[in-house]
Amino acid sequence: MIKVGIIGATGYGGGELVRLLAFHPAAKVHAVTSRSYIGKAYSEVFENFRHEEELVLQEENMDSIAKECDVVFLALPHGIASQKVTKDLLRKTKIIDFGADFRLSDADAYEKWYKVEHSGREVLSQAVYGLSEMYRDKIAKSRLVANPGCYTTCGILALYPLVKDKIIDLDSIIIDAKSGVSGAGRGLDLKLHYDEANETVKAYGIGNHRHVPEMEEQLSIAAGRPILLSFTPHLVPMNRGILLTAYAKLNKKFSYEEVNEIYQKYYKDEYFIRLTKKGVSPETKWVKASNFCDLGFTIDERVGRIIVVAALDNLVKGAAGQAVQNMNLLFGLEERAGLDMPPVFPA
Amino acid sequence: MIKVGIIGATGYGGGELVRLLAFHPAAKVHAVTSRSYIGKAYSEVFENFRHEEELVLQEENMDSIAKECDVVFLALPHGIASQKVTKDLLRKTKIIDFGADFRLSDADAYEKWYKVEHSGREVLSQAVYGLSEMYRDKIAKSRLVANPGCYTTCGILALYPLVKDKIIDLDSIIIDAKSGVSGAGRGLDLKLHYDEANETVKAYGIGNHRHVPEMEEQLSIAAGRPILLSFTPHLVPMNRGILLTAYAKLNKKFSYEEVNEIYQKYYKDEYFIRLTKKGVSPETKWVKASNFCDLGFTIDERVGRIIVVAALDNLVKGAAGQAVQNMNLLFGLEERAGLDMPPVFPA
Amino acid sequence: MIKVGIIGATGYGGGELVRLLAFHPAAKVHAVTSRSYIGKAYSEVFENFRHEEELVLQEENMDSIAKECDVVFLALPHGIASQKVTKDLLRKTKIIDFGADFRLSDADAYEKWYKVEHSGREVLSQAVYGLSEMYRDKIAKSRLVANPGCYTTCGILALYPLVKDKIIDLDSIIIDAKSGVSGAGRGLDLKLHYDEANETVKAYGIGNHRHVPEMEEQLSIAAGRPILLSFTPHLVPMNRGILLTAYAKLNKKFSYEEVNEIYQKYYKDEYFIRLTKKGVSPETKWVKASNFCDLGFTIDERVGRIIVVAALDNLVKGAAGQAVQNMNLLFGLEERAGLDMPPVFPA
Amino acid sequence: MIKVGIIGATGYGGGELVRLLAFHPAAKVHAVTSRSYIGKAYSEVFENFRHEEELVLQEENMDSIAKECDVVFLALPHGIASQKVTKDLLRKTKIIDFGADFRLSDADAYEKWYKVEHSGREVLSQAVYGLSEMYRDKIAKSRLVANPGCYTTCGILALYPLVKDKIIDLDSIIIDAKSGVSGAGRGLDLKLHYDEANETVKAYGIGNHRHVPEMEEQLSIAAGRPILLSFTPHLVPMNRGILLTAYAKLNKKFSYEEVNEIYQKYYKDEYFIRLTKKGVSPETKWVKASNFCDLGFTIDERVGRIIVVAALDNLVKGAAGQAVQNMNLLFGLEERAGLDMPPVFPA
Repeated sequence: MIKVGIIGATGYGGGELVRLLAFHPAAKVHAVTSRSYIGKAYSEVFENFRHEEELVLQEENMDSIAKECDVVFLALPHGIASQKVTKDLLRKTKIIDFGADFRLSDADAYEKWYKVEHSGREVLSQAVYGLSEMYRDKIAKSRLVANPGCYTTCGILALYPLVKDKIIDLDSIIIDAKSGVSGAGRGLDLKLHYDEANETVKAYGIGNHRHVPEMEEQLSIAAGRPILLSFTPHLVPMNRGILLTAYAKLNKKFSYEEVNEIYQKYYKDEYFIRLTKKGVSPETKWVKASNFCDLGFTIDERVGRIIVVAALDNLVKGAAGQAVQNMNLLFGLEERAGLDMPPVFPA
Repeated sequence: MIKVGIIGATGYGGGELVRLLAFHPAAKVHAVTSRSYIGKAYSEVFENFRHEEELVLQEENMDSIAKECDVVFLALPHGIASQKVTKDLLRKTKIIDFGADFRLSDADAYEKWYKVEHSGREVLSQAVYGLSEMYRDKIAKSRLVANPGCYTTCGILALYPLVKDKIIDLDSIIIDAKSGVSGAGRGLDLKLHYDEANETVKAYGIGNHRHVPEMEEQLSIAAGRPILLSFTPHLVPMNRGILLTAYAKLNKKFSYEEVNEIYQKYYKDEYFIRLTKKGVSPETKWVKASNFCDLGFTIDERVGRIIVVAALDNLVKGAAGQAVQNMNLLFGLEERAGLDMPPVFPA
Repeated sequence: MIKVGIIGATGYGGGELVRLLAFHPAAKVHAVTSRSYIGKAYSEVFENFRHEEELVLQEENMDSIAKECDVVFLALPHGIASQKVTKDLLRKTKIIDFGADFRLSDADAYEKWYKVEHSGREVLSQAVYGLSEMYRDKIAKSRLVANPGCYTTCGILALYPLVKDKIIDLDSIIIDAKSGVSGAGRGLDLKLHYDEANETVKAYGIGNHRHVPEMEEQLSIAAGRPILLSFTPHLVPMNRGILLTAYAKLNKKFSYEEVNEIYQKYYKDEYFIRLTKKGVSPETKWVKASNFCDLGFTIDERVGRIIVVAALDNLVKGAAGQAVQNMNLLFGLEERAGLDMPPVFPA
Repeated sequence: MIKVGIIGATGYGGGELVRLLAFHPAAKVHAVTSRSYIGKAYSEVFENFRHEEELVLQEENMDSIAKECDVVFLALPHGIASQKVTKDLLRKTKIIDFGADFRLSDADAYEKWYKVEHSGREVLSQAVYGLSEMYRDKIAKSRLVANPGCYTTCGILALYPLVKDKIIDLDSIIIDAKSGVSGAGRGLDLKLHYDEANETVKAYGIGNHRHVPEMEEQLSIAAGRPILLSFTPHLVPMNRGILLTAYAKLNKKFSYEEVNEIYQKYYKDEYFIRLTKKGVSPETKWVKASNFCDLGFTIDERVGRIIVVAALDNLVKGAAGQAVQNMNLLFGLEERAGLDMPPVFPA
């Protein structure tokens, strides 16, 4: 069994990772750490694990955990992972980082968008961007995986075929995303108080959300030229799920079938990407608690635009599920191992 | 007191109208009609009015109600109002139509988008589009007001100053809207079942929603040239509220202050439009159960776009509140009469 | 105009009071205080009041506010009001306390249940329990009103007629209550985080909730002998509202009509208490944002019990609305002044 | 592999059963039937199964399905299962009935509570009540299992030890239950419209809910004498989950530890029953999408009552999960097979 360590296991991403690993045939949680709950049973922090009392939160001793574990998942505040992950550490264990520290190839860009120092420049070049569908071969050979952001995964998967095949005006991309509240984490914040987030919708981080450079970098690579895009995330009153609506000008008139062929070309063998049928638009309820990303598109001939709608569960394909998928790649396992469950509905 | 009749009073818009008129100093509900609940107390259909047992649902006898009432509000399925509203009827009473039959100036366009016959061509030219802020003088002189759609009100108010002053690329407008479920009405439909609409987000009517031609017509008038735009409505799990995020290319570099001046020019004396301060983005929770439309914008210099966010309550400024505002105009009352209440929070 | 001061105006109860007073014909908010937001516009703390920028949060200077205001509402943590309210202060102004410090006639009992010292024993005997329907004459003559708890108001109104007319076994009372999350306040607490309170129900304070002694004292007075009861509050995922289900053994066989007569005897002239018809059970949605308390009951002959269901809005009849009702009594105004609005539905 | 047929597979219980069987190591869905969706892919009715397009809804041909399948799950309206299940049918296949037709041992009582004829009296005596924890031996030997109601499972598990060991006054039992909306099914009904069920709580079926006789029969068997109890179900705005709060007089003073010992005696080896620690109260969020039933209790010495709180997922332990547990018993499989997943949180 692969021994798994989780650093910072008391957020929603950590909880979901522990849940998913319970299904895994070849991996087992060996150590979980926390700063606030040291010595507490994990099942007291997440009571859904009430039966499993043996899992106890330890201090964050990176070195000893790296020695004991075959893979360590990091769920740490921005700027901390880049301090912790060293060449030495990577000799001891493989790392899958939930955070952003190793997602951008350019540490200066990271510092500009995140406003913290990047302390891991020496290992940055070893990091592979962990969008499994796009980088599975590289991930398989790496020891440091930068698990993508939740919005980012959704946005890149939605647009990749269009950008790669250059059928859209690359300067016309607008991404409007709607996320459940768990995407904002388990921290205390008036904005996340039930009565503040319930029965309301709002936009935030307009034009400056940190997932922008990540989407731009990956789509630029796909396009072979720099892309700038508009991205507006919104908070909607639900626990889980991201629905993303992307708009772009088509370079010329395309039929539904022509575009569909392009999507099929890239995704028809991707188990975790489910293309909807013509006229069917993805909804977050159909992917809940699963690793699927549902994708559909509409061509609006009147205005010459394509509208792509994508749905995923921010805690699964947008975080812990994709991390497990990456772990499977790192260890040469079946990519679907432990991730093969149908979505839960209604949930 | 102005005697009010409401035809089709058992939907959410009708219920909200009855609620708002309870605050009105100069108007009183005289008759309410229904097809399914004839003879039933209104307070049995909407139990929030439990105390007011004298209001009983009558048959939809348009003629006698028109004779008895100074103003009649219509909340009818598409295509029915255009049958009912005749020159003769308009001699007897004033009409405020919640539906779409008189919103588009072109009956052919109406028939194309709504797929029903328009039977009211002879009175169509008398109809005034009831966006009070834009047409208050015309409304004051009219007898037939086409109360705008909920999305439309929000979209036009958001974009009008930009379009009117031509500071944006008129071919670049994208409107992404998020609505609470009450916007879809009180009818039975699996999509509106609690467990189907709860904890999920979805897009619908992509590129073909019927509020598109309404927004396009009004914005085209403002621009002085035809405008086509992209509009995607989304259903979010909450009872009330619309949040609308509009995107457009700026024609040149503008500062926040310059654009703000334009918004101030058009809206600073509009009581029901509340411009947010720089950096503050509207949220639907701040306008709940009120007639306000909150507006804010962000300039994203990186991509040369402006992003406008607008919030209103779909049942108030998006329906019954705006209808009362129009009634006030029709009868020469203070425009704010009966609409002067602060939003309810949390609600 | 009555000049109103609000000490601790930044909680949900304070925000609702400001909202309700906007409707009031004879009272106006003069001063609002806060500990955390001194100097900030009230409209920045509660953006629903976006238009009213002149209201600014001041320091909590009780003495000067008492001098300037005809009535001061207190929304303070347990134990603080009893420090602040002195004989001297009561000479300067009238006080309506949202907290519990003056609700129990016995300061020792208060200290036992609340685990804080009661510093206001010298004024305690002047306090009147502010359940308007039961103590309106006393309230009218007093200067210190202890506004009841939200659960308490609901529980006492539900059971008072049964207890007063002694038709139930006084030792058999069980109250099971369900509250929206706003009842727990606007403070930061993991339990109130959106994802923790959404899509779940839980019981809390089983057998030791602080509203127990308040209900027991008032029902004991009504019964003329001590009553002990079981009370279990539950948190349900909604913003507002309390639904309370009370169970008691009937002393003998009673018909629905006999019991209904008893409820009518006490409540038929109470505007804010709405008795439902036979077979109709109250729901919180029908009282939202209003000062109504809806009451209905069922006799279960099989088991010889009566089940009473009551619904109110915890922020209105359960807090700010009742406080305004008490203010109206204190100043000899029409009891319904400013409270005459229909409930908002759907909300 | 066990071949599974599901008659009436398009309700929420059916959908959940298909989901759970996807995890099962020894069973596979072979046939699903429907009345309204014949010929449609199951994945169009429940789009969470988007990938599995081969499962198509058939006509309800009981006979041929019974021949083909090792076990048939019935999800049919009241009164229909008792027509369909005959001695002949039971020779061909094993039946697990989600409905109520075979839950009460007395067909007359059934007819009284359900107001429909019971057409299956000849097979009724063969039916075993499918509360796995209580009847596992009998279930193992039977061919007709009456899967219990959701409230019932929760209520019986909560009270069984107290009743069996006679430590409570058997005439004092009051059960107050709160259910998510999925418990009411996927049918169209104004009461289940999103805006009608959202942001509100209500009681229903007070004193006459059909789960009453089921709980009474089972608890009477445990007690060895007839028990009558009060039961009030409530609808709360969430998709899934039941929280049940039960009240009873203790026969004498008991310590927490003494009662805990009784619960441990009956449940400590029951995998699906998780007893909470002293002071910890179950919440529905901790059992979501799992087969667990969490149980905790409080002794209120002041009033001599015990308050038991139980939580389960109405679609899993309250329906499809328990059905799978029963299927495992019927076929001599490990009772936990396919049910071993941790709850999903937040969901």
